[in-house]
Amino acid sequence: MQNPLKIAVVGSGLVGSLLAIYLRKEGHTVHVFDRSPDIRKIQFSGRSINLAMSHRGWKALDTVGIGDEVRQISIPMDKRAIHVKDRISFQNYGREGESIYSISRGTLNRKMIDLAERAGAEFFFEQRIWDVTLSDATLHIGETERGEWKDLKYDMVFGADGAFSRIRHRMQRQSMFNYSQEFLNTGYKELNIPANADGSHKLDKNSFHIWPRGEYMLIALPNLDGSFTCTLFMPFEGENSFEKLTSHAEVVAFFEKNFPDSIDVIPELAEDFFKNPTSTLVTMKCYPWTYDDKIALVGDACHAIVPFYGQGMNAGFEDISVLYEMMQAYGDDWKKVFAEYQKSRKPNADAIAELSYRNFMEMSSKTADERFLLQKKIEKRFSEKYPDKWLPLYSRVTFSHRPYTEALALGDRQKAIMDKVMQLPDIERIWDSATVENEILSLLKS
Amino acid sequence: MQNPLKIAVVGSGLVGSLLAIYLRKEGHTVHVFDRSPDIRKIQFSGRSINLAMSHRGWKALDTVGIGDEVRQISIPMDKRAIHVKDRISFQNYGREGESIYSISRGTLNRKMIDLAERAGAEFFFEQRIWDVTLSDATLHIGETERGEWKDLKYDMVFGADGAFSRIRHRMQRQSMFNYSQEFLNTGYKELNIPANADGSHKLDKNSFHIWPRGEYMLIALPNLDGSFTCTLFMPFEGENSFEKLTSHAEVVAFFEKNFPDSIDVIPELAEDFFKNPTSTLVTMKCYPWTYDDKIALVGDACHAIVPFYGQGMNAGFEDISVLYEMMQAYGDDWKKVFAEYQKSRKPNADAIAELSYRNFMEMSSKTADERFLLQKKIEKRFSEKYPDKWLPLYSRVTFSHRPYTEALALGDRQKAIMDKVMQLPDIERIWDSATVENEILSLLKS
Repeated sequence: MQNPLKIAVVGSGLVGSLLAIYLRKEGHTVHVFDRSPDIRKIQFSGRSINLAMSHRGWKALDTVGIGDEVRQISIPMDKRAIHVKDRISFQNYGREGESIYSISRGTLNRKMIDLAERAGAEFFFEQRIWDVTLSDATLHIGETERGEWKDLKYDMVFGADGAFSRIRHRMQRQSMFNYSQEFLNTGYKELNIPANADGSHKLDKNSFHIWPRGEYMLIALPNLDGSFTCTLFMPFEGENSFEKLTSHAEVVAFFEKNFPDSIDVIPELAEDFFKNPTSTLVTMKCYPWTYDDKIALVGDACHAIVPFYGQGMNAGFEDISVLYEMMQAYGDDWKKVFAEYQKSRKPNADAIAELSYRNFMEMSSKTADERFLLQKKIEKRFSEKYPDKWLPLYSRVTFSHRPYTEALALGDRQKAIMDKVMQLPDIERIWDSATVENEILSLLKS
Repeated sequence: MQNPLKIAVVGSGLVGSLLAIYLRKEGHTVHVFDRSPDIRKIQFSGRSINLAMSHRGWKALDTVGIGDEVRQISIPMDKRAIHVKDRISFQNYGREGESIYSISRGTLNRKMIDLAERAGAEFFFEQRIWDVTLSDATLHIGETERGEWKDLKYDMVFGADGAFSRIRHRMQRQSMFNYSQEFLNTGYKELNIPANADGSHKLDKNSFHIWPRGEYMLIALPNLDGSFTCTLFMPFEGENSFEKLTSHAEVVAFFEKNFPDSIDVIPELAEDFFKNPTSTLVTMKCYPWTYDDKIALVGDACHAIVPFYGQGMNAGFEDISVLYEMMQAYGDDWKKVFAEYQKSRKPNADAIAELSYRNFMEMSSKTADERFLLQKKIEKRFSEKYPDKWLPLYSRVTFSHRPYTEALALGDRQKAIMDKVMQLPDIERIWDSATVENEILSLLKS
């Protein structure tokens, strides 16, 4: 146990609530602030993508004994269900027993706040934090940015307030603060597949459904109530884009043409399309993440990533695992705790950002590329024959606690090998020959 | 001539003042705001690096007929004077008659404001702009950020307020605004070589003096009054760093050891070292640069770069040349003017940022690298023999109006060729042979 402090957590999202639980277990007084109303009392926004919890997320939950409660509101997905033209092909995610878990963001967030309150954290909703004084961990709260503010002094402030963090905003205005935000030209929109009348799922329940179409795609993840939360990813502008779909008829025609088997299961398609917002996708990086022993950023507030590896929440939860390790190692020396936390996490946050962005690029530019598909086939064949020599990158990221940097290095190494393999003469013909297999084996040794 | 508008320029620096002159020539009403006092009435800051005006800068000045007045306050430098251990070696910048021009930032800024006032622009100093309403070009001015503000509405606002622009700060808070700021771990400090008693220069007047030492270096540029403005570039932390020099004795010892021939000419070395601030170096990129036909960013406000190519001001002045071209092409269609301006300039701003950063990396990591020096020798020899086949990259950047993107492409191509040349067996021995020459000739053809 550490010496008890008075700590503010700004942001009552998933990572903020989890952090509150960890801090309470260490005996600190914890106040959690959020500018939004209590999510437990309102309808959720219609702009979410369902979460896919995997190893890193579960570890952070299990360490404080709340994994099982969360498992009860999750649905295992052991495979992708890939909706191609006229059929569905299934692809296991990992080995026997390895699954990722679908959870609705709203459901999980409500549960996490309940659990944090049960652990003794106090929540203050509809409290707008406009600024923070870094040197003495004082929050500045008020109705409006230009109006009157009230000051609340803490021993320490955590910024868990997401990609557009106000806490980081203040840190950004220091000298020597590195920062970048980069938006994709692709946005996303939430849609819905309701349950059958008997509460059952309209599509296979234990699959991550995906309709890959190159620069745009549709995904669907199961919910407990029999529904699926769907997300359409699509460029804002161009041939197939949000800007091109301006009427109910155009939306329906687009789905009929491109996702024909989705039409029957999304009854409110056009209504939801125009009711729900089109959201943006941003990669945000910054450094440092901490200020003295007073301020620290966690989750999206210091490393927002695009969702194409399903690791956003998992990476944020892993921040808390690492922070906790440092608290165990360095006790009340918070300067050291913060310094080692950011030093350990920053390269891993950069690595998962890069991996997520690469997945986006692969999906949007390469799925129609014959050579890319051939390469994937060669990798798959080799990996099945030599599972100990060729760990699929997805597994290293998803079903592992090894650092993301190692996954990125593994990916780079596999890519370098496959670049050489794809240059073998006549590769289209000889792709599943012993020649290719021996070439990979020899490249792996070099 | 365009239809006259009421235009605000935020920032009375070099680019803001030049823009004011251009806008006045088109008949607009121009108000220039600055948060600082009138630079003509105060001592300059002790944190500047002398400017090196080259082709792009001169063109922007000559177009509005003020080049000659500025030439009178500048000193041509036709060569580098490289201070190595015990001697100085001279290196011409370009061909016969090609020079860059040293100008003190303070002197030039005062002159530019005078010229802008003469052209009819009105200046308002010590006016703090805290925010701008993008949609109707309204400036919000007040004593303090949290105090009372007054609103000033214009037809159009230009942000020429530098790397930490408030105008951009508001644009940054829009969705889909890409932004990055990245600081070097190297900082800089201004020092001074005063004139001789008779007003003459203590070092060769028509040279850019440089003491290259790998990760740190000293430079000196001549002023009209016989002095030189010196700049020490050095890491903040590490073996040779600002943090290591904490006493007068340490500073003197460091200079005696590393810049022995500078000691006699910098009499106030230790005093200035501790009196002048240590400044940071940042690369800032963003996009878009404009908002509708209401707001546009120019100069460092949209593309701050590190100073290692001497192109910061030149690039900012070239913004104004390009903006003016667009005004000539599209008249009162400001939406089009702004759209084409940013489309044309953004890739070039990225290119000069990259070239400047590469120069920093080369200087700080490679000047001690034997192979790098050999490569430079091979390039130089080839370029002298075949000047039409191997234009030095520096010349393409400095003595040219061709886009920076072309210079970057040229640099990439030359680098690819030299990477291959350096892999020739026994290159250390055969470097000035016909074999190497023919190899380059053949690579240039492929």
